[in-house]
Amino acid sequence: MREIIAEIITIGDEILIGQIVDTNSAWLGKKLSDLGIRVKQISSVSDDKQHILNALSEAKTRADLIVITGGLGPTKDDITKNTLAEYFNTGMILHQATLQRVEEIFSTRNLPMIEMNRLQAFVPANCTVIENTTGTAPGMWFDYDGNVYISMPGVPAEMKTIFEDGVIAKLKEHFTMPSIRHRTLLTAGIGESFLAEKIKDVEDNLPLYIKLAYLPGLGQVRLRLTGYGDDGNKLDAEIDSFAQQIKNKALSYFFGEGDDSLEKYICRIFADNKWTLSIAESFTGGYISHLVTEVAGSSAYFKGAVVAYDNEVKINKLGVKRQTIIDHGSVSEQTIIEMAEGCKKELNTDYAIATSGVAGPSGGTAEKPVGTCWIAIACPNGKTIAKHFHMGSDRHNTIHRSGVVALDMLRKEIEK
Amino acid sequence: MREIIAEIITIGDEILIGQIVDTNSAWLGKKLSDLGIRVKQISSVSDDKQHILNALSEAKTRADLIVITGGLGPTKDDITKNTLAEYFNTGMILHQATLQRVEEIFSTRNLPMIEMNRLQAFVPANCTVIENTTGTAPGMWFDYDGNVYISMPGVPAEMKTIFEDGVIAKLKEHFTMPSIRHRTLLTAGIGESFLAEKIKDVEDNLPLYIKLAYLPGLGQVRLRLTGYGDDGNKLDAEIDSFAQQIKNKALSYFFGEGDDSLEKYICRIFADNKWTLSIAESFTGGYISHLVTEVAGSSAYFKGAVVAYDNEVKINKLGVKRQTIIDHGSVSEQTIIEMAEGCKKELNTDYAIATSGVAGPSGGTAEKPVGTCWIAIACPNGKTIAKHFHMGSDRHNTIHRSGVVALDMLRKEIEK
Repeated sequence: MREIIAEIITIGDEILIGQIVDTNSAWLGKKLSDLGIRVKQISSVSDDKQHILNALSEAKTRADLIVITGGLGPTKDDITKNTLAEYFNTGMILHQATLQRVEEIFSTRNLPMIEMNRLQAFVPANCTVIENTTGTAPGMWFDYDGNVYISMPGVPAEMKTIFEDGVIAKLKEHFTMPSIRHRTLLTAGIGESFLAEKIKDVEDNLPLYIKLAYLPGLGQVRLRLTGYGDDGNKLDAEIDSFAQQIKNKALSYFFGEGDDSLEKYICRIFADNKWTLSIAESFTGGYISHLVTEVAGSSAYFKGAVVAYDNEVKINKLGVKRQTIIDHGSVSEQTIIEMAEGCKKELNTDYAIATSGVAGPSGGTAEKPVGTCWIAIACPNGKTIAKHFHMGSDRHNTIHRSGVVALDMLRKEIEK
Repeated sequence: MREIIAEIITIGDEILIGQIVDTNSAWLGKKLSDLGIRVKQISSVSDDKQHILNALSEAKTRADLIVITGGLGPTKDDITKNTLAEYFNTGMILHQATLQRVEEIFSTRNLPMIEMNRLQAFVPANCTVIENTTGTAPGMWFDYDGNVYISMPGVPAEMKTIFEDGVIAKLKEHFTMPSIRHRTLLTAGIGESFLAEKIKDVEDNLPLYIKLAYLPGLGQVRLRLTGYGDDGNKLDAEIDSFAQQIKNKALSYFFGEGDDSLEKYICRIFADNKWTLSIAESFTGGYISHLVTEVAGSSAYFKGAVVAYDNEVKINKLGVKRQTIIDHGSVSEQTIIEMAEGCKKELNTDYAIATSGVAGPSGGTAEKPVGTCWIAIACPNGKTIAKHFHMGSDRHNTIHRSGVVALDMLRKEIEK
């Protein structure tokens, strides 16, 4: 079966000057991939007739399906519709059902309708209208010279409704789709190159129709397997098998799949076991608590945190001994252990995380340069694990990377 | 003066299948516009050699400057570097300074270095390396056949650092830019449409060559004035004048300009006055502390926070009376005042912020629906300000918006 190739064209200067982030393309990319259509390119172009015409001509050479968003509003700078009519070498006609819809919308909202709004009901003569149930600009489907073109408004809510309610069914009717399968495996605590080294044998044996991509983040790497083929069941089985082979090569680093996250995974394990957690944060300044509490349901297990930025707070709220800080400094194994154990006791939880480090840009010394940090996990069995890291010299990255590393240390303990 | 045209090419299947939203392009679009360079197209293409080569050839016909991100990692699917070498008809060479940097990074982090990491130091022979101070993949500058090509890693933090520290100066050196002036005014605590209403008279009188853009965020609106012209000094004077007129229309909402932030502004005021701050966070879960501690230098004034997710923590660590919570609930004026005053006393600071609310999705009632929250500021004069808000039904937005609102309440108090 021949692969169906799509190209997305988004129209609008506001994207090019960075005034808005183009989230439509990512949404469409995911929807089209899920349908088994391969998106080959996304092009964002300006509100300029010749530029749009060029983009359409180029896309035609690469793609079977061209999905266009934007430039359908009522104002002067919205030129997509007339440009499409020119591209298809046709004129504009009034679409009665759309005119009725626009009139209804204005009468419902008690707004006067001006000529500019009436123009919303004109479409290129070769167009099949796809109703827009949430706005005035209709969706449009064109079957022209062997390609399908779909034009939708750029307002995300309108575009999504038109695509889901009107476009998907028409695409399935028009094209014979291949099977496509995605699977994303989540890892933490291992760098991209080390992970690649570990799973090299499996990667080298992947067939051409299954691709592996590395998606690195701070302290985390996601692995995405994508397969294309005629037989969906066979693909499922193959991807399952490769996913398992990959996991087996580095089992302790994998914790979840898809849209899961370390924080959600930890939330589930704690809730299932009815354990509780508290956090003592020095240089991470509340970031780990923030990660944990962004997850809905975290109140079931997370009791609270002490952000002990100042040493007096470490002493008064976490029970760290003044002498420990004097003897070893606040960024030390001794202090981090007292912070973790003190936090666990003071907030009366099963587990506690503690962090202390030098976020920078100032505060570093030869012995403890910027990026130096200690992270500890106090466990219910009375054991406390403390580890020492260098997180680099960028303040923002040091904080964020440390958050992931701390949660990953906790994950390893609760998995034991 | 001839306009400089740029095209952005982002490389990576993860963008095309919608696994990540391409925020790099918007960021680059804004930065290039700020420099006076017009971005004509953004193209996102797959990790496929021929497709990348085609995109480069097409971009060359449209643009003077081609900015490429992505595909520079150490793994197999990262093919940008070799593809560029092929496009430029050259080979790969080892860049010694980059190799040293990569070796340093690995030795600082106490990690072993493998062959794959060493490959990061190879670049096309015609390349001028732009140092990457936050990662292993170098930025690259190519001057080829009348066009400039810049290739940077796709990891946003690395891309941004390379662009700001290494690329901007080289662009200014290479191209003759038109005069363009930007000025961004920061507001907090007022919605976009209300702000627009207040400054309408000034906006209506702007000349055609000065544009005003509203950039709304959660609880904050930035106003950007952009002027184009031949005479930079004249533009500066005009933009200064309009900026002042705009500020005068709504003085109390403006707190800063450019890349400033509420957190940085507050940090400066506290440091200048040698005041101290503590925070008691319930439903915001550490987010406000995180905002505050992301600012370098915050340790000068921020002593710490208690994330009192559980009521026992509010009682034991902040001194909230058990009876207050029983009588009024944890999301109430009475409790928030005790939290703020307790935090100020327990952590021994001049000011304290406190938050308590229903982040959702569960926990809402008819009387206190999801999004209900109380925020209080305890002040050095013994006065405590408490306010009540509805932040909407989305957990993430409720937390983030509340963080901004709390800091803005603090700003208003310290400005008195």
